[in-house]
Amino acid sequence: MTWVTIDRLQKTPLIRQIYTQLRTKILNGEFSAGYRLPSTRQLAEELEVSRNVVLEAYEQLLAEGFLEGHTGAGTFVAEGAYLKKTDPITPFMMEKKLSKMNYDSIIDFRSGIPALDLFPRKQWGQIVKRVSIETDHSLFGYDSPEGRIEFRTVLADYLLRTRGVECHPEQLVITSGATQAFTLVAKLLLSPNDKVIIEDPITHEIQTIFQSYGASLFPIKVDEYGMVTTQIPTEIKPAFIFVTPSHQFPMGGTLPIQRRIHLIEFARKVGSYIIEDDYDSEFRYEGPAVSSLQGLDPKRTIYIGTFSKILSPALRLGYLILPPSLIERGRRLKYFSDLHTPSIEQLSLALFIKEGYLEKHIFRMRKIYRKRRDFLKEQLCKKFGDRVRIHGDSTGLHLVAEFDEIYFTDSLLSKIYGNGVKVYPVELHTINKGFYTNQIILGFGYLNEAQIKEGITKLEMSVNN
Amino acid sequence: MTWVTIDRLQKTPLIRQIYTQLRTKILNGEFSAGYRLPSTRQLAEELEVSRNVVLEAYEQLLAEGFLEGHTGAGTFVAEGAYLKKTDPITPFMMEKKLSKMNYDSIIDFRSGIPALDLFPRKQWGQIVKRVSIETDHSLFGYDSPEGRIEFRTVLADYLLRTRGVECHPEQLVITSGATQAFTLVAKLLLSPNDKVIIEDPITHEIQTIFQSYGASLFPIKVDEYGMVTTQIPTEIKPAFIFVTPSHQFPMGGTLPIQRRIHLIEFARKVGSYIIEDDYDSEFRYEGPAVSSLQGLDPKRTIYIGTFSKILSPALRLGYLILPPSLIERGRRLKYFSDLHTPSIEQLSLALFIKEGYLEKHIFRMRKIYRKRRDFLKEQLCKKFGDRVRIHGDSTGLHLVAEFDEIYFTDSLLSKIYGNGVKVYPVELHTINKGFYTNQIILGFGYLNEAQIKEGITKLEMSVNN
Repeated sequence: MTWVTIDRLQKTPLIRQIYTQLRTKILNGEFSAGYRLPSTRQLAEELEVSRNVVLEAYEQLLAEGFLEGHTGAGTFVAEGAYLKKTDPITPFMMEKKLSKMNYDSIIDFRSGIPALDLFPRKQWGQIVKRVSIETDHSLFGYDSPEGRIEFRTVLADYLLRTRGVECHPEQLVITSGATQAFTLVAKLLLSPNDKVIIEDPITHEIQTIFQSYGASLFPIKVDEYGMVTTQIPTEIKPAFIFVTPSHQFPMGGTLPIQRRIHLIEFARKVGSYIIEDDYDSEFRYEGPAVSSLQGLDPKRTIYIGTFSKILSPALRLGYLILPPSLIERGRRLKYFSDLHTPSIEQLSLALFIKEGYLEKHIFRMRKIYRKRRDFLKEQLCKKFGDRVRIHGDSTGLHLVAEFDEIYFTDSLLSKIYGNGVKVYPVELHTINKGFYTNQIILGFGYLNEAQIKEGITKLEMSVNN
Repeated sequence: MTWVTIDRLQKTPLIRQIYTQLRTKILNGEFSAGYRLPSTRQLAEELEVSRNVVLEAYEQLLAEGFLEGHTGAGTFVAEGAYLKKTDPITPFMMEKKLSKMNYDSIIDFRSGIPALDLFPRKQWGQIVKRVSIETDHSLFGYDSPEGRIEFRTVLADYLLRTRGVECHPEQLVITSGATQAFTLVAKLLLSPNDKVIIEDPITHEIQTIFQSYGASLFPIKVDEYGMVTTQIPTEIKPAFIFVTPSHQFPMGGTLPIQRRIHLIEFARKVGSYIIEDDYDSEFRYEGPAVSSLQGLDPKRTIYIGTFSKILSPALRLGYLILPPSLIERGRRLKYFSDLHTPSIEQLSLALFIKEGYLEKHIFRMRKIYRKRRDFLKEQLCKKFGDRVRIHGDSTGLHLVAEFDEIYFTDSLLSKIYGNGVKVYPVELHTINKGFYTNQIILGFGYLNEAQIKEGITKLEMSVNN
């Protein structure tokens, strides 16, 4: 008989080799129902293997229903074990990157990326190791949907100290980055056809998320101070108002107290919530950090924060501060999304904050980013002189550059890209189109001075040729 | 003047102390619009601080819009900076645990929890540290929604080798545990009022997730071999069929090849997908692991796996294998859920598998779990004799015990709990109620022999008194 072959050089165990070949032949109909297999003794002799090997392969096939055994009568192929094959899946490559960037060959002014080469990798590695080795073993089990209490306690302290955010640890839900916080807010508050008042422009992904939950967006224009709150129509009753008051994205304004109060009074009147997205205000270059909007009315504001900009987006750690009335539902929604956020990372970050590493890191990075920002502004002025105006550079990891008579059409953007530079038009993030065609967003967080210089030089070349 | 006080013993910087007090007084109306503040020089003298301290506090308040400065005329409280206060949020405790268990005071037979005290914490800690320190810094940036290519490559190899799963790394989407995989499948395939064919009983949470996306569940009963596929009505056209073919949850059957083929032929005929949830089949105690259903028709099956049982639920690492036609949408949905799963953990697990630690760990744990299972069966027989029958113990971290004339009503369950033991009735997971009232699920993964013995003794006591 030649229908089973074994290969003693292969890593696959002999039992598995025999099992797999028989299984395949039954599935594809080569051995059909009722076919009698050789006895285990006979097959073992032919293949020169121990009889136990054949016995185990047969037993597995019996257990899975491929074979039937009749005591004394032998082993037969069972009914109903033939399956018509479809075409196999052919190898294919579709490593299309939805969000991954090319860090090497292109100078990419993408916003919101911290200096990856300055991530405190040694401290982080050591802390994770310590947490893994020293914590009680319950750490490795299922945890609470809202996150580790140690982390939430440390975080509530940190937020009060640095951001004027008023919250009890019970109000926090730890999320997988700010993105998950946006989807949880959408699930919490949105019903189809609900209105959402939102800044225009505002991060494109956030628009997509709210729309995917059925919201219709009501855009309010933005000036150098953020949302122009006086333009909110009094008759509208939104599910919520979404704002980035510390550092409007992308235009960079900081919302003055009058507009904050206006928003809160409006929200109180119509009975809706305010979502405060605070993504990078730790890096404020002029004066101390602005206090949060949340602190003005913690019952009406949902605050969303992230460690992606101040530490690393790879950690996927963000959080949501909920008013008491929404806590139970918020936890439940988190539970049914992914049970909870990874525990070892949460505890590691708690320690990282508690032992002062985070604030030290932010302090260090703020100086570095300020230098990069100043250098970028300098380069822009040097290359474009009067033709460029800078917006929103008081805070964060990006600024907006507005140009006289340079319009960032697709063809200009391709040309710039062809020259090895990637810039992001503000128009990517607008709802009402056409008002920001001469403006681009320039992230500077993870680019060093040499890269910034080369990038702006090439940008100027692309524009003027 | 007494209205600003400073406390040099406090950790808060002096600037922040002055800023906060002035801000509060303006917000609550104590200082109203137009009120003229003392000059910086005057206030500095009164408080005995450097003038720069007061200057910075004033500047911050000017920047945030609380104050207005008129050159030469002094500094005034601005209009519109008064906000009517609502009641503050009072401290409250609501540390209600949706899923966290008490590992100490109660013997909890919860299923699906691995032996937490045997998690390879040292190896894990060391690998994470190594990955954090040695990997290129691009690791700390944003990553692809489908997960790290290194991890997906290692995982595809591992799944083919151990589970007969046929997939290219391109078909994998790394998720935050199996739960996120369920929600992604629901988002991918369900529209409101779609039908889902599902085993009955089946994990309660899974029912909730599919229903929350608008599905109506069509339950098919389960016998000792899993779903009784002949009971699927031929006229039904479901969005998908959900099965746990390797180890039905909770009843523990392994689906025979005939039923697998029946399912596939049905799915082909009506043009629907099959979801294979394979949560713990690595721990098979009789014979080698059963091959996956996915391998029989990779174009029609979505396979969901997790590392929660074989390693630790705290990692929140699971995955989804998608047919080519669903890959792009699957990645997009993952992107809009939380961008991607944490990168350092993914790379650490890739290394953990590649260097053979995972298979070694599984090999070791299988022996331990088998012993615990055998011990649990022994104890059940010892205490209940003929009155108990065991189901579904060939695989995994739990078994089902069926009792003669013992019905697990709420009052009996409370009594058992009162005696320090928690057991889980199969009825928790049924769709059609009332057929499993004398059966409970007993997880044994993380209980040692002393705990198992004590637990079953107390169970017997509770039942017979």
